Amino acid sequence: MSRRGLLTGGALAAGGAFAGVAGVTAIGDKQAEDRDDRLPEAVPVAAVGSTVEPFHGPRQAGVATDPQAHASFVALTLRAGIERAAAGRMLRLLTDDAARLTQGKPALADTEAELGLLPARLTVTFGFGPGLYRAAGVEDRRPASLAELPSFRIDRLQPAWSGGDLLLQICADDPITVAHAQRVLLKDSRPFATVRWVQQGFRRSPGVEPGGRTQRNLFGQLDGTANPRPGTPMDSAVWVPDGPAWLRDSTTLVVRRISMNLETWDLLGRADRELASGRRLDTGAPLTGTAEHDEPDFAATGPDGLTVIPDFSHLTRAHVTDDRLKILRRPYNYDGAPITEGHADSGLIFTSYQADISRQFLPIQRRLAERDLLNEWTTPIGSAVFAIPPGCPPGGWIGEQVLG
Amino acid sequence: MSRRGLLTGGALAAGGAFAGVAGVTAIGDKQAEDRDDRLPEAVPVAAVGSTVEPFHGPRQAGVATDPQAHASFVALTLRAGIERAAAGRMLRLLTDDAARLTQGKPALADTEAELGLLPARLTVTFGFGPGLYRAAGVEDRRPASLAELPSFRIDRLQPAWSGGDLLLQICADDPITVAHAQRVLLKDSRPFATVRWVQQGFRRSPGVEPGGRTQRNLFGQLDGTANPRPGTPMDSAVWVPDGPAWLRDSTTLVVRRISMNLETWDLLGRADRELASGRRLDTGAPLTGTAEHDEPDFAATGPDGLTVIPDFSHLTRAHVTDDRLKILRRPYNYDGAPITEGHADSGLIFTSYQADISRQFLPIQRRLAERDLLNEWTTPIGSAVFAIPPGCPPGGWIGEQVLG
Ligand code: HEM
Ligand code: HEM
Repeated sequence: MSRRGLLTGGALAAGGAFAGVAGVTAIGDKQAEDRDDRLPEAVPVAAVGSTVEPFHGPRQAGVATDPQAHASFVALTLRAGIERAAAGRMLRLLTDDAARLTQGKPALADTEAELGLLPARLTVTFGFGPGLYRAAGVEDRRPASLAELPSFRIDRLQPAWSGGDLLLQICADDPITVAHAQRVLLKDSRPFATVRWVQQGFRRSPGVEPGGRTQRNLFGQLDGTANPRPGTPMDSAVWVPDGPAWLRDSTTLVVRRISMNLETWDLLGRADRELASGRRLDTGAPLTGTAEHDEPDFAATGPDGLTVIPDFSHLTRAHVTDDRLKILRRPYNYDGAPITEGHADSGLIFTSYQADISRQFLPIQRRLAERDLLNEWTTPIGSAVFAIPPGCPPGGWIGEQVLG
Repeated sequence: MSRRGLLTGGALAAGGAFAGVAGVTAIGDKQAEDRDDRLPEAVPVAAVGSTVEPFHGPRQAGVATDPQAHASFVALTLRAGIERAAAGRMLRLLTDDAARLTQGKPALADTEAELGLLPARLTVTFGFGPGLYRAAGVEDRRPASLAELPSFRIDRLQPAWSGGDLLLQICADDPITVAHAQRVLLKDSRPFATVRWVQQGFRRSPGVEPGGRTQRNLFGQLDGTANPRPGTPMDSAVWVPDGPAWLRDSTTLVVRRISMNLETWDLLGRADRELASGRRLDTGAPLTGTAEHDEPDFAATGPDGLTVIPDFSHLTRAHVTDDRLKILRRPYNYDGAPITEGHADSGLIFTSYQADISRQFLPIQRRLAERDLLNEWTTPIGSAVFAIPPGCPPGGWIGEQVLG
């Protein structure tokens, strides 16, 4: 479109035409489209913005990665008729976008190229819901534990926050980087899929707390203390160590949107809040200890004869000792617009990564659903499960072992 | 509430009772409530988290302050029957919260005290809408230019994003700090007011771009280049230099929620997008220059005989040369959940601060509404105006010159 076109309203006409059905665009076509667009000059960057997380490798990034400050979880529904070959085309396209953007390069035909230059530790992690295996006719490659969760009595699930065939988990230390990556990926997925839900979450900004510190959720709790330690313990909990190519180095992800009732929580005194979780609000130490990473002593009793850490505390009910049965939690806070009366719409985008949902996540969730003091103030309102297939080498694409 | 109470469900009963009408709580009562709550220990902080913006002073913070990464704009409607004395009580309470939280101290009776320890340059700026002056019967102290804006032909205003009696503008370099401050302020304002709208916005995270760099909006443009320079030029544009105590050192704020149509914008080539704004996407330089802060040459013509910077470009239409007639823009991006078809819900929380809305903001907005190429891709969907009353010394409160 020429300058004259712009000035005489031609641009708008083109806009109108665009409202029609979008065609499936292969990478080759996109390169052609891009040709006459001037490439942006490099801009100076500071450390936080230019830090890069590797994209290629045997395992996908965004799982063991030290959690970034901002996340967008985008769940897509495949359009009717998208089967194995088309799903593969989509993933080739999206892998190419992710491989570029995470390295601080604009995507092909990136229309906001300047927004693609500061990766800020961007990771894009792809998750496959049960529906993707069905649509692609590759259910023999679906991890055995990947199935919709049973319903729990505490659940108040809303379809608007549940399910999904494909998950794009987009995390970065900068919210503009996340917004831009989401925009690019959604544009390229559009011929293949529609948006089912989007959940945007946050933790502390980069530099606000010393690296590696546990995040605080909106109840004020340190949240993530008892995660499996990086290295062998985390590896054995999270990644499938062997099996066919589509399984080895994969993991699974449970996403639960859990609303946290600040109205009633705030009526409790500090002591009662600490009893409910089993840990102190300030240090995150178990009630039987003094430092965050002290081992809890579930047998210790107080002067009243009760266990110091209540038997129905979240800590007691969720606790797992066997490293291989632990889950890796990587929670993000959400805070929607409060309603008219000023009540917060706050909560947790709870995420749990584990090699096997049935052996690791489900027993914990069952114990919590059965009896957990925190249940009085927390309500699961969304739920979804995804396989996180293995990573890919340069030139490969995420999902090739499943769909290739 | 005792531990026994917690374990036997007493907490929940208290929660139920809370759902009733909240009483007006004075600061004295709150101190009493707080008494039996253990104070949290100090936690170690990094530089970004512990940086403090002064709260007290002749002018409110959050206007000339170098924009923080995250903002929440909360517009409240006064409850029926809230007049001058009650509005004053509310502002004393909210001033106390803001004075503490901005300095990294929990608010009185702060139920998530740990979330109050990292100010991350938190500012809380109070704005008074026309309705507050009416309700308090102090219309003789309303800045003359403070009135609802006339409607413009480009407007598609939604009541859900417009108006408001009191604005809480909460900005910090950390999203948890913003969420917590919002929570505290809303709890304390609840007896006096309901929530009208909340707009959450973002810019780059701290450290992502070198300090002082102009922000990029979601069109990829550098946005804020031609702001009046800090010091005398900004001062003369923004702050009322004299007059009665309720007017001197005050300013006014126009908040416009402007949706940006990325779908149609992305169909334009780079050259056409640059013609629409009059500046380059990469450097932000005017089309007649090479560096961001070069003076635009509106008379220069190209080989086609047209002005190099189109006469209907945003730059030409918005340009102001007289420093005293400039406006201070402090925009934040918003990015809501995309709709099913994957179209973005992106835009700008456009904010403009000026000593006088009629003399400064309105002539620019009129020129833009009349003819501005950017109008093809931008639509105002919300609008509100507020006076930003003078600041206060320690022991004082925001609004005392208006309501005292
Ligand atoms: C809004 C809901 C939730 C909140 C506020 C919450 C909060 C916490 C807190 C404060 C801790 C202690 C510190 C830590 O180790 O991270 C914790 C631990 C834990 N939580 Fe949760 N949690 C929630 C939901 C869940 C769910 C749904 C699960 C799994 C089904 C879960 C599993 C765990 C596990 C496994 C631990 C570690 C226990 C241990 O081994 O010591 N949590 N949670
Ligand atoms: C989504 C809507 C808008 C977008 C995307 C936008 C974008 C821009 C851009 C890219 C510039 C050039 C760089 C700069 O100086 O900041 C600019 C300048 C400017 N804009 Fe906007 N703008 C929008 C709405 C508005 C509105 C509503 C007003 C006021 C009514 C306004 C007033 C100005 C002014 C005064 C300038 C500086 C012009 C000069 O003196 O050089 N803009 N805007």
